[in-house]
Amino acid sequence: MEKEVKSWEQLAELIASSDQEGIHDYMDENKSEDIIHAFSHLNRAEQNDLLGLMSAEDGASLLERIPQSQAVQLIEDVETETAASILNQLYSDEQVDIISELDDDDAHAILEEMYPKEAENIRRLIHYDSDCAGGVMITEYLAFECTETVGEITTKLRDNSEEYEDYNVQYIYVVDDGVFVGVLQMRDLLLSKASVPLSKIVIKNALTVKDTDHLTELISFFDKYDFYGVPVVNDANILLGIVMRKHVREAENDRFNTELLETQGIVGGEELRTMPVMLRSRRRLSWLSVNILLNIIAASVIAFYQDTLQEVIALAVFLPVISDMSGCSGNQAVAVSLRELSLGVVKPYELMRVLWQEVKVGLINGVVLGALIGLAAFFWQGNAYLGLVVGGALAINTVVAVAIGGTIPLFLKKMKVDPALASGPILTTVTDMLGFFLALTFAGLALAHLV
Amino acid sequence: MEKEVKSWEQLAELIASSDQEGIHDYMDENKSEDIIHAFSHLNRAEQNDLLGLMSAEDGASLLERIPQSQAVQLIEDVETETAASILNQLYSDEQVDIISELDDDDAHAILEEMYPKEAENIRRLIHYDSDCAGGVMITEYLAFECTETVGEITTKLRDNSEEYEDYNVQYIYVVDDGVFVGVLQMRDLLLSKASVPLSKIVIKNALTVKDTDHLTELISFFDKYDFYGVPVVNDANILLGIVMRKHVREAENDRFNTELLETQGIVGGEELRTMPVMLRSRRRLSWLSVNILLNIIAASVIAFYQDTLQEVIALAVFLPVISDMSGCSGNQAVAVSLRELSLGVVKPYELMRVLWQEVKVGLINGVVLGALIGLAAFFWQGNAYLGLVVGGALAINTVVAVAIGGTIPLFLKKMKVDPALASGPILTTVTDMLGFFLALTFAGLALAHLV
Repeated sequence: MEKEVKSWEQLAELIASSDQEGIHDYMDENKSEDIIHAFSHLNRAEQNDLLGLMSAEDGASLLERIPQSQAVQLIEDVETETAASILNQLYSDEQVDIISELDDDDAHAILEEMYPKEAENIRRLIHYDSDCAGGVMITEYLAFECTETVGEITTKLRDNSEEYEDYNVQYIYVVDDGVFVGVLQMRDLLLSKASVPLSKIVIKNALTVKDTDHLTELISFFDKYDFYGVPVVNDANILLGIVMRKHVREAENDRFNTELLETQGIVGGEELRTMPVMLRSRRRLSWLSVNILLNIIAASVIAFYQDTLQEVIALAVFLPVISDMSGCSGNQAVAVSLRELSLGVVKPYELMRVLWQEVKVGLINGVVLGALIGLAAFFWQGNAYLGLVVGGALAINTVVAVAIGGTIPLFLKKMKVDPALASGPILTTVTDMLGFFLALTFAGLALAHLV
Repeated sequence: MEKEVKSWEQLAELIASSDQEGIHDYMDENKSEDIIHAFSHLNRAEQNDLLGLMSAEDGASLLERIPQSQAVQLIEDVETETAASILNQLYSDEQVDIISELDDDDAHAILEEMYPKEAENIRRLIHYDSDCAGGVMITEYLAFECTETVGEITTKLRDNSEEYEDYNVQYIYVVDDGVFVGVLQMRDLLLSKASVPLSKIVIKNALTVKDTDHLTELISFFDKYDFYGVPVVNDANILLGIVMRKHVREAENDRFNTELLETQGIVGGEELRTMPVMLRSRRRLSWLSVNILLNIIAASVIAFYQDTLQEVIALAVFLPVISDMSGCSGNQAVAVSLRELSLGVVKPYELMRVLWQEVKVGLINGVVLGALIGLAAFFWQGNAYLGLVVGGALAINTVVAVAIGGTIPLFLKKMKVDPALASGPILTTVTDMLGFFLALTFAGLALAHLV
């Protein structure tokens, strides 16, 4: 513990004393996770000062590691020239990720300050959706004309080895006036004579993806093929960039994170406690206020049956249990559906299949849970009818809950609505209303035996 | 929709007519996601027959794509020889993943049938935990002795190009009698004369990781460095394998999936509806039965104050709302904590920091939600005191809920308990009890004004 505490205090001191060399060493010596942790503990002024005290390369390295929301905030805060010089150092996909989150004015100002080629590249890439190949690709790749020879490009590689260090050199692409022809592998260059033109050794049937291909197709592609990257072309077969396996995985990761946070009601799919309090509060409230409205609507069922409840006050103890347990059972089914949808094991139209699979489990679990709560009621009040009422209500409601919980995500996905955020609230509102209704109606029917 | 329905029916027909060539073409032509989907729709007998009708390579390709739990079930079902011939084709990390999930008897039998070298390799690797470098690494890499020359290994590469096709050839390792010396890059071979011994061009300060390094350190490593893989050595610096960036990402992905499913109460972190019904039911019940017990304990607070409730029956409508909304607010905080822990933005000992950040948001949201529910109560019953009672209870309980929700995951992590599965139930039990207590106690204090 003490070692980590030192780490961010150490960084704060280096910033306070404007120790540029110390900061560079700090970036070099520490692991990513320690840098991320330390950075999160600095206040906003310290974070901005830090960026000003770093070289552009170190600044880019920092931006690559910290969570994206923090990176965007930092770029927004610092001066335009500093922002531009750092962004110049990033790969194109990260440049686009950050620039696309800025205000138009900020974005415009920074682009004006960046290297013209970088800026032009970004302006072109920024139009792509973040979940298609064009939004995930990078433009740092090597491509040579098919008329060049092995010897010529070997010389180019040797002469420009420093510049190409950042580039992806596992695959060298061959184009004919910009139109994609094929791929070379390093080992092919190794094993060929210097005078051989690229057109003779290029692998022509190379796989490509379209710039408009969706993330799920890219995931599928990298599941099927063991490549590290794939060239991206447009309709005219012009080579535009390269999608790396690692970037697809990162995009997939981001989706999972977003999903986890959304199922718990974090709108926007991301919250870090370094964000401003009002922003965090407002986002959480946007989901909570919808929830409380739905909750009050569901609870009005109880109000409707108030008289029954007055007679069998013991029921009031079990209503929250029935409501909560139905929600739990239903949310288990929601989680499994979200998982199966993302794996591709189930498709949104397969409602009946999911329904059947869930009802089977719901019947077993409903009987078990109904028996448990029924026994608890019986032992407490000594009244078997009370046990039957609450047990029966929970058993039936469990079956309904898993049936709804399993199918709602599929249904929402079919309607192009994000299932992660909405499934929970819809589920619990319906099961709450039904649960209260069942318990109070059964109690009403068995009233004579309960009072 | 119709196209996908055809896809799995198509596969079922190919299996029924034992059409081996058709099945091979099917594997070749279809995308991963379609194959996964189709496979999930076959019954167990069809799935087993399919594997028997495939070549070992196609079988391995299938196993690589379907979810791991399905792959394990398949290997368990088919005959030992079929299983062994397919496992021979997989990369070492996947071999270990599957073998480690089998019964000892099944595992033993299959290992006996596999190529001796593969089996020996697996027996060595299987001792590693799945979340350390040894458990993630593959053993398919190229290593040559430092006394060999560029010309000699170029010849070896050319002569064995087919075998090495599956190997990772971005980095060629150099050893001295098994002890790791350094790395060669393809481009170094390309640019050197044939007579040069490897010891002259090897990069000696190459980074390595230990076989016991944990997954978080590997994630950190690949955040910091842009390599595709890193050699794994043991304490004696003997080269053991190579960890690929993509495998680390996959392991990270698995952790996220597990976390999402566990927060919703799926014990074991994975459920697919193709699993047997009894297994699914039993796993879900193991979490639900703990939950129902906690729920009943919490609801007993209501039983304790039954008399108050009898007098102010309107309160019974709001108890489930208070309970549910506190749970929602608390679970938002849990989700953010899980996220910040996994990012490394917060460490388990930083309870006070999280507490402070959460209380700030809890106060704002508590006041808003308390006002909403208070107004609902007031408008319904025309009694301002009822509004104050339920509103006050919810407001206070919200602050407590986010405070607990934010800190419980850190606390559990400190105790080396998995926070994803346990945080929710602990949170809701405490906030339920407190919420009921607050509402009913306040009602008791204001009784005169409420009846």
